[in-house]
Amino acid sequence: MPPLGDQPAGHFADRLAALVAEHETQIVLGLDPDPNRLWPEAVERAHGVAEQHPGPAATAAVAVLYHCRAVIDAVAPAVVAVKPQIACFERLGAPGWGVLRAVVEHARRAGLLVLADAKRGDIDVTATAYAHGFFGGFPTPFGHVDGLRADALTVAPYMGADTITPFLSEARRIDAGLFVLVRTSNPGAADVEDEPLARGGALWERVAELAHGLGRPGPASGLHDVGAVVGATAPQHLARARDLLPRSVFLLPGIGAQGGRIADLAPAFAPGRAAGLVTASRSIVRAHEQHGGSPAGAARAEAERLREAAWSLA
Amino acid sequence: MPPLGDQPAGHFADRLAALVAEHETQIVLGLDPDPNRLWPEAVERAHGVAEQHPGPAATAAVAVLYHCRAVIDAVAPAVVAVKPQIACFERLGAPGWGVLRAVVEHARRAGLLVLADAKRGDIDVTATAYAHGFFGGFPTPFGHVDGLRADALTVAPYMGADTITPFLSEARRIDAGLFVLVRTSNPGAADVEDEPLARGGALWERVAELAHGLGRPGPASGLHDVGAVVGATAPQHLARARDLLPRSVFLLPGIGAQGGRIADLAPAFAPGRAAGLVTASRSIVRAHEQHGGSPAGAARAEAERLREAAWSLA
Repeated sequence: MPPLGDQPAGHFADRLAALVAEHETQIVLGLDPDPNRLWPEAVERAHGVAEQHPGPAATAAVAVLYHCRAVIDAVAPAVVAVKPQIACFERLGAPGWGVLRAVVEHARRAGLLVLADAKRGDIDVTATAYAHGFFGGFPTPFGHVDGLRADALTVAPYMGADTITPFLSEARRIDAGLFVLVRTSNPGAADVEDEPLARGGALWERVAELAHGLGRPGPASGLHDVGAVVGATAPQHLARARDLLPRSVFLLPGIGAQGGRIADLAPAFAPGRAAGLVTASRSIVRAHEQHGGSPAGAARAEAERLREAAWSLA
Repeated sequence: MPPLGDQPAGHFADRLAALVAEHETQIVLGLDPDPNRLWPEAVERAHGVAEQHPGPAATAAVAVLYHCRAVIDAVAPAVVAVKPQIACFERLGAPGWGVLRAVVEHARRAGLLVLADAKRGDIDVTATAYAHGFFGGFPTPFGHVDGLRADALTVAPYMGADTITPFLSEARRIDAGLFVLVRTSNPGAADVEDEPLARGGALWERVAELAHGLGRPGPASGLHDVGAVVGATAPQHLARARDLLPRSVFLLPGIGAQGGRIADLAPAFAPGRAAGLVTASRSIVRAHEQHGGSPAGAARAEAERLREAAWSLA
């Protein structure tokens, strides 16, 4: 991994806001590679080198690497960050984690931020251990073990604030940030997140308050280094979330495949364009299945279409 | 990984109950290896083979493997399962995931169940991807990618029931189970889990009801394949949790280093001895720091002490 100096220094939200302004985009490319749905060229190339990477997991991991590199190359001009879905790498075991690191390096060379979507959450020392892996690593008797040096990580709030602060401490060592799950895009969000509280409001609103209290504003952007995951499929919650989290960057999944519409996202952008990041994965990567053309060309066109739609709103 | 036939078949809770009865123990060995706190012999041996495993992460991973094997060998007669803390392997990247697989194989050869402590949680396809990795794997164009074949996995409930059921579907394909986070052992559990609801009760009680609704009883034991993580540091909640989860196996962290006492755990064991699994990690692995003696001897003695204390309660 590159040393810290290779990443731009400064508060996470300031770095993000500068990139959003420079590239005129709020789109985040979700990388959820399924070995059964990769771009055909990546699969063919992986079959061609299968002898060098024996075993289904190693070959599938190489195919995932080729695929992710091609997607990033096609889409980079239209997006500000990639959001690797860690599950899709983790299920390939050790080769998957090796490829995740290579994908992160490729995205960084393309000038993109890396938002690791892992939804981790655990008590004190365990949270710190996860954070070591996703952020700056940790010292051992065998030398410093590098972390992934992600620019941000998604975290789960069920266990409370003391399970989030260890992630934040490690993130801040390398000017990274967090995105706390607040109101997600799945129907089951009604089961727990929407539960009405005795004090008034829904549980997710309480979690929003906790997330707000943990953030620190960047001196340039005024935006916090603790953002929130707020699903684009429930736009009625966006304005309320913005009231509770006036300085947080919202990571907005659910556009496209899950049914959310960009036009409904305006409240997310109120504090500035960098305050609303629209994530899209399948709708970009599988655009050729809908619209025809080459996978790369269709992905680029769809990412550009999303970019314009979001940029024109703010 | 061994084929499915090498694992005993049958409902997770029935397999667990049979092992608890056979080995007369409800103790689960937590494996939270910190490269800075390993047994000295493991560190020395890893230094000796560092040339074959170049780089800090690879050498640290080998040290972790030697350490975990030695701990398992020392403690196996007194425990029914191991609970690898996935964060501690994940932060070592690809070598860490390779070693995790080897530790799981070692524990299985020692006749122990494997409860993967990962606290994962995500929407539909992503939850399934995580479950592929921890349970039975998945088919790809490059062949079947093996999963870890864990006997059970801890999962996080914040995002709702539809983020738990995909894990359960994959678990049941290999007769595995889940443990849902219900009321955890950290002080911050008060922030979200204890939040009073408008319908009455605390949030964690609502989550307990959800977990109860997802489980299916084993024909032999009557215990569910969806268990609950209930911290041993808040014994006042144990009786209430048992009311809400009359057939669930409780995974009880917090004994020892976190201050919980075995004598307070009696309500957990009400449906039978296998319904309360007492996890201990640091108090076993670092017993020699407290009580002197060799690391292996002290660990074995402490595990045996815990075994007797829990067994005598039920």
